[in-house]
Amino acid sequence: MSVLVVGSVALDTVETPVGRADRVLGGSAVFFAAAASLLADLRMVGVVGDDYPLPELGFLAARGADLEGVVRAPGRSFFWAGRYSRDFATRETLETDLGVFASFSPDVPGGYRDSEIVFLGNIDPSLQLRVLDQMDAPALVAADTMNYWIEGAREALLEVVGRLDVLFCNDDEVRALAGEANLAEAARWVRARGPSVVVVKKGEHGAAVFARDWTFFVPGFPVAKVIDPTGAGDAFAGGFLGWLDRADLGCREDWKRAAATGSAMGAFAAEAFSVDRFRGLRLEDVHARVCALGEMTAFDPLGVPAGA
Amino acid sequence: MSVLVVGSVALDTVETPVGRADRVLGGSAVFFAAAASLLADLRMVGVVGDDYPLPELGFLAARGADLEGVVRAPGRSFFWAGRYSRDFATRETLETDLGVFASFSPDVPGGYRDSEIVFLGNIDPSLQLRVLDQMDAPALVAADTMNYWIEGAREALLEVVGRLDVLFCNDDEVRALAGEANLAEAARWVRARGPSVVVVKKGEHGAAVFARDWTFFVPGFPVAKVIDPTGAGDAFAGGFLGWLDRADLGCREDWKRAAATGSAMGAFAAEAFSVDRFRGLRLEDVHARVCALGEMTAFDPLGVPAGA
Repeated sequence: MSVLVVGSVALDTVETPVGRADRVLGGSAVFFAAAASLLADLRMVGVVGDDYPLPELGFLAARGADLEGVVRAPGRSFFWAGRYSRDFATRETLETDLGVFASFSPDVPGGYRDSEIVFLGNIDPSLQLRVLDQMDAPALVAADTMNYWIEGAREALLEVVGRLDVLFCNDDEVRALAGEANLAEAARWVRARGPSVVVVKKGEHGAAVFARDWTFFVPGFPVAKVIDPTGAGDAFAGGFLGWLDRADLGCREDWKRAAATGSAMGAFAAEAFSVDRFRGLRLEDVHARVCALGEMTAFDPLGVPAGA
Repeated sequence: MSVLVVGSVALDTVETPVGRADRVLGGSAVFFAAAASLLADLRMVGVVGDDYPLPELGFLAARGADLEGVVRAPGRSFFWAGRYSRDFATRETLETDLGVFASFSPDVPGGYRDSEIVFLGNIDPSLQLRVLDQMDAPALVAADTMNYWIEGAREALLEVVGRLDVLFCNDDEVRALAGEANLAEAARWVRARGPSVVVVKKGEHGAAVFARDWTFFVPGFPVAKVIDPTGAGDAFAGGFLGWLDRADLGCREDWKRAAATGSAMGAFAAEAFSVDRFRGLRLEDVHARVCALGEMTAFDPLGVPAGA
């Protein structure tokens, strides 16, 4: 199978309590790809400007990722600068320059149209729709979104939601989208509008997967030292969908394992600036974390106490 | 075995987005007892004023809880009034009247001194020490604390911590106590000062148990409709220690099951005002939630994807 990601390919300048990185690789498509390319055949659609150091994406190509869909346009690359609070709990955007992304109109290369899994990063819903219109018949369509579109492009976003199998979003985003504080209820609201599964990302608290007849919680893999949480949510989605691709979409058990794989990937993203932690990462490093998550969550609900 | 709880026995007036309750049963000892008494022989030490409706604690006595240690003193009962924000994320204290609690000096009845498990609710650390000085040789001593004591009575609190086997506290509290943002590191800081286990409560996100050579995460049991989260943390501790009592302290597997039992109890606390949800609760209702939590967290970390 294969996974197509469409999203931002950006340069980020990030200040965190433990350091700073200037004009490093960023963007939702890049973080997603860094994780998913370890697991699946990955195809990427995006746009960069004259200034983008495309060779730095070579570690993705070396794993077999197809970057033909990343086009260069005259102008500056999408640039984002942000600063995290002392406890990493909040972040402030210092600068956003859309650059060539302002006129981005994703064209899906002919060879990508048969992709079985599609992930639409949190770009303008009208662009997400444009991508879907170019696809043959993907087996699974997933998207991420953000408060900016929930507030500013609700109608188009709901049209996207209506065409999804899986929506990924943060807990505050799904609450805002549904106008409902209870997470399970908010997820039900979303499911009634299209997706059969809603994956709610909760940062260090992990994620919750809400399907029609089952719910699954995975904690955030505990990170020894957080360096930069930017992109952890996209890496989570990359691990999740990369695993589903590997499992040919699989069954409920594969979806749970997919969530654990996402949690492991999100932690790797946070352990370094940019996608640096993924450069030398091996599949067995991911498996080791998934096994560790298994030990950190498994208990015997039927156990009879010794004293009973 | 038996569990002794020492803490506040209060009257609460609570406003939440979904309703209001006036002068209802509250206090850390009462919420703890409401949960623990379903699982273990429970003994309670506290003080109430002339105005306390002691007969309303009859449901605890009916389960075999020993309330001999709850003494009546002339004056008003500890009273707390608070209001939750629209999303339940924060709460504001509207009024606190310590009443007879201001001069509370816990006396442990002679028949309680052989209790195997002791839980010290989040009262003044000097009172927590006074309780410990009266005990024979408990097998397990646990305590809760709060930012008020972390900031205002740090020295006495660290003396308490030095005598604990288990510290229960919220994530922001353990961070404040240790001066360390990373939860696992903060827990390590605490463990170096006494307790072998630190249980970090994270509200709707569940809890994390940090021991020397293992870590365990349990999600918050998803509550269909939150009515009033007051006391959920104490009910969590009551479920946790009640299970350990039932298991004769048990092994690591029992401690994980204890955390799941705590999560179930915390959810019951949030589903009604005061301790109302515990009045008719049966042990099988708790077991059902623990089993459901098992299904919501279990995955096979060794599973090979169908497509591999």
